[in-house]
Amino acid sequence: MNVDINCDMGESFGVYRLGFDEEMMSHITSANIACGYHAGDPIVMERTIALAKNHGVSVGAHPGFPDLVGFGRRNMELTPQEVRNDIIYQAGALAAFAQIEGVSLQHVKPHGQLYNLAAKDKPMTEAICDAISALGKNLILVALSGSQMAEIATKSGLKVAREAFADRAYHRDGSLVSRKKEGSVIHDPERVADRVIRMVQEGKVQSIEGDLIDLEVDTVCVHGDTPGAVLLAQTIRSKLQEAGISVLPMGKFL
Amino acid sequence: MNVDINCDMGESFGVYRLGFDEEMMSHITSANIACGYHAGDPIVMERTIALAKNHGVSVGAHPGFPDLVGFGRRNMELTPQEVRNDIIYQAGALAAFAQIEGVSLQHVKPHGQLYNLAAKDKPMTEAICDAISALGKNLILVALSGSQMAEIATKSGLKVAREAFADRAYHRDGSLVSRKKEGSVIHDPERVADRVIRMVQEGKVQSIEGDLIDLEVDTVCVHGDTPGAVLLAQTIRSKLQEAGISVLPMGKFL
Amino acid sequence: MNVDINCDMGESFGVYRLGFDEEMMSHITSANIACGYHAGDPIVMERTIALAKNHGVSVGAHPGFPDLVGFGRRNMELTPQEVRNDIIYQAGALAAFAQIEGVSLQHVKPHGQLYNLAAKDKPMTEAICDAISALGKNLILVALSGSQMAEIATKSGLKVAREAFADRAYHRDGSLVSRKKEGSVIHDPERVADRVIRMVQEGKVQSIEGDLIDLEVDTVCVHGDTPGAVLLAQTIRSKLQEAGISVLPMGKFL
Amino acid sequence: MNVDINCDMGESFGVYRLGFDEEMMSHITSANIACGYHAGDPIVMERTIALAKNHGVSVGAHPGFPDLVGFGRRNMELTPQEVRNDIIYQAGALAAFAQIEGVSLQHVKPHGQLYNLAAKDKPMTEAICDAISALGKNLILVALSGSQMAEIATKSGLKVAREAFADRAYHRDGSLVSRKKEGSVIHDPERVADRVIRMVQEGKVQSIEGDLIDLEVDTVCVHGDTPGAVLLAQTIRSKLQEAGISVLPMGKFL
Repeated sequence: MNVDINCDMGESFGVYRLGFDEEMMSHITSANIACGYHAGDPIVMERTIALAKNHGVSVGAHPGFPDLVGFGRRNMELTPQEVRNDIIYQAGALAAFAQIEGVSLQHVKPHGQLYNLAAKDKPMTEAICDAISALGKNLILVALSGSQMAEIATKSGLKVAREAFADRAYHRDGSLVSRKKEGSVIHDPERVADRVIRMVQEGKVQSIEGDLIDLEVDTVCVHGDTPGAVLLAQTIRSKLQEAGISVLPMGKFL
Repeated sequence: MNVDINCDMGESFGVYRLGFDEEMMSHITSANIACGYHAGDPIVMERTIALAKNHGVSVGAHPGFPDLVGFGRRNMELTPQEVRNDIIYQAGALAAFAQIEGVSLQHVKPHGQLYNLAAKDKPMTEAICDAISALGKNLILVALSGSQMAEIATKSGLKVAREAFADRAYHRDGSLVSRKKEGSVIHDPERVADRVIRMVQEGKVQSIEGDLIDLEVDTVCVHGDTPGAVLLAQTIRSKLQEAGISVLPMGKFL
Repeated sequence: MNVDINCDMGESFGVYRLGFDEEMMSHITSANIACGYHAGDPIVMERTIALAKNHGVSVGAHPGFPDLVGFGRRNMELTPQEVRNDIIYQAGALAAFAQIEGVSLQHVKPHGQLYNLAAKDKPMTEAICDAISALGKNLILVALSGSQMAEIATKSGLKVAREAFADRAYHRDGSLVSRKKEGSVIHDPERVADRVIRMVQEGKVQSIEGDLIDLEVDTVCVHGDTPGAVLLAQTIRSKLQEAGISVLPMGKFL
Repeated sequence: MNVDINCDMGESFGVYRLGFDEEMMSHITSANIACGYHAGDPIVMERTIALAKNHGVSVGAHPGFPDLVGFGRRNMELTPQEVRNDIIYQAGALAAFAQIEGVSLQHVKPHGQLYNLAAKDKPMTEAICDAISALGKNLILVALSGSQMAEIATKSGLKVAREAFADRAYHRDGSLVSRKKEGSVIHDPERVADRVIRMVQEGKVQSIEGDLIDLEVDTVCVHGDTPGAVLLAQTIRSKLQEAGISVLPMGKFL
């Protein structure tokens, strides 16, 4: 049994610092690297790839909407072609740095509202799949487990990593509980780790309503910019390994 | 005898249109395509590559300073590493679109003040050479003929295309006559063509002071956004061919 | 009887030129000036105010979404506070140039998708009204005639100029016919002028379905960047005057 | 005897946080607020003005080069008109928020390389003076004490606040010792405070070469984003007051 741990990285910009990239790198297996549209710049991008490489962490592109002040978290009504081309631009720029550092892009994970949008908007999903398959046949799309995006991408022949959120509560229907609701975020590292183990071993998670629901997982997302982030990632990884689960970059088993 | 004709292309941005790209494509052999920093956007970039491909025109990256409102024409004091990484970012993004269109990047030509700066500032030249050789061993750097940039790049093992400006007057020392001076721009297409032929055949051009000076040329730059641009390019190309000179993309003979 | 003719102006940016600003200024009474977010820059802004002043044209701010590549035409899900503050920022910047040129801002007209959104989204409308009343009690909001925005703004105590589109067809319910439909744009200048006269004199327009509908109008929008724009504006203005209607900046009669 | 203590504020941007604005406000009398070009955004700008107002701190504009990724610290070769208009744009935007919060702009302090450039480049200085006098006759320019900028601005009739850097060593000729040299930054709060007291009381400071040099001071700059910044500001203020010096916003005594 295998699972990947991914984290958003390289979100600093110019003089601005964001995220505990150095501390997190020891505990993850895949880094989603910002590409300059919602965060990141050409110096940060190269530095982050080098850091990942030094820790044996695989790298992927984390393209977002062209909205730095909104950090890619505000929805923008782009055409599918604009979304496709914005992804190609960003992933292409990152791929150049990766190549120079002697590594290949392993995956693409849309950022913020682009990720949310893609999970439910079919033309957007298709535009994203189109961009990724154009960029390279071996590139993996990271998509919300159980989402329309995961399904469409799989059907279109893309490699897909089904993603779960380690510390987030799920509803009975597989959707994430809104951050505004009590109980939406699980803070106890041990409990989070136990949930991830169950996802990997049984393909199940307990919903906030109490039912056991199906949740296949190839990669678990951990945050890199919150208090407790480092401890959480460390705990998940060590408990997964204790449970006999291999924690590997998604590209090694997908 | 061979020569290439290059032109800046893909300088439109969003709703803004610049340059006679469609009309010019029939008359040139290499297109320098803007990459989004001083001009261009991901839709324009892909469209321009497709247009070039349809005309058998080879494509190159035309990276500039991150200054859209100044069109990359205002000097910026970046560190060599910032220049290097900004070039890799821009050329990488363009390379992704090129790959998707089934073509390879042939060359890199720094834009505007980045070109001017590189011609005389050694650390900047080295940063640019470093970026290009990192991006690919076969990429050609387009550099002002006779400049320090051409010399340093050649010594560093890069392929270099020595560039001349078809319609610009030169001083005795090989530098361009400032646009502010009378006689700095030659408007008669026939006379421009004759000068280019002499550059190619004899490696010489008559300076504004009257002397014949050495000027080796691999690629001739024509403008694509001025009245008369199309006629000028057309005349140069046909007169070069009449004179028995092959007009080819630089990558075919360098 | 009075009416104002308004036109979007100052949409050039850096080297990019857009719109026939100089030609249009003779035929309009109010200029909506872009403020740097979707178009315009500090040089263009000042130049456009000076041009308007020389023609006796009143000036207003034309703030848009922070999306230069999309020209403010792509919807963005900003919070009401972000919309409010983005408008204050843009109008404040323009007001400084206006003050220096010795004129006052007469009005604010939201641009593109911000205008469309405000016409139907109540919190957005309130945020816009809040921004304008904070900027100055005498500032006029230009709002689609018959829209919720016009109604809310009027109730909140703002001065409102009800806007009609000279060359656009209307549905029976007062909404604009989509540009994608045949007959949505009226090209004959005489017919456009007749429609405007009727709007002003009778407060009526014939809908695309054939009915006469109510359409109060204080200001008529003409485009400044399409072929025929200058002739259209000229024809409307002279026919309005022949019909005994005073064509004046909205600030003179509201 | 009076002196002002100024600090750069409002340099956060979107999700990015920079500076201890809240902690510093208790210890300063004038806030230089970023205006969106090198740092700051419309939400941060308004919040920072409100924070300053609550602490009785006067506000000024801190305009910079249009270079967010370089934080306005990279020189850009703009024309004097571009510099003038970029300042008017930024200060105008900030002034709108100030007016809404019920305060007036007290001063303008150019940021980063714009400040450095203005200290020695005459056309740039004149462009900055032109912008400020156009914005308002009572606006104070903050200029390096002893610099050409201070002199030119004073001659042109502008109100000028001569600025000294509390924790920086000076050369015999009044220039700042480069940060790269040992001893360029003085870390001991007591010693820094003593230097400031001497500047205010005697108009003198001891240079790094050992001589006493003239240094008139109206406002002392403290940093807001370094470890120890809060303690340093607090110590300076209390020791100045103990020495019988009034610590007041510059607008109260200039």
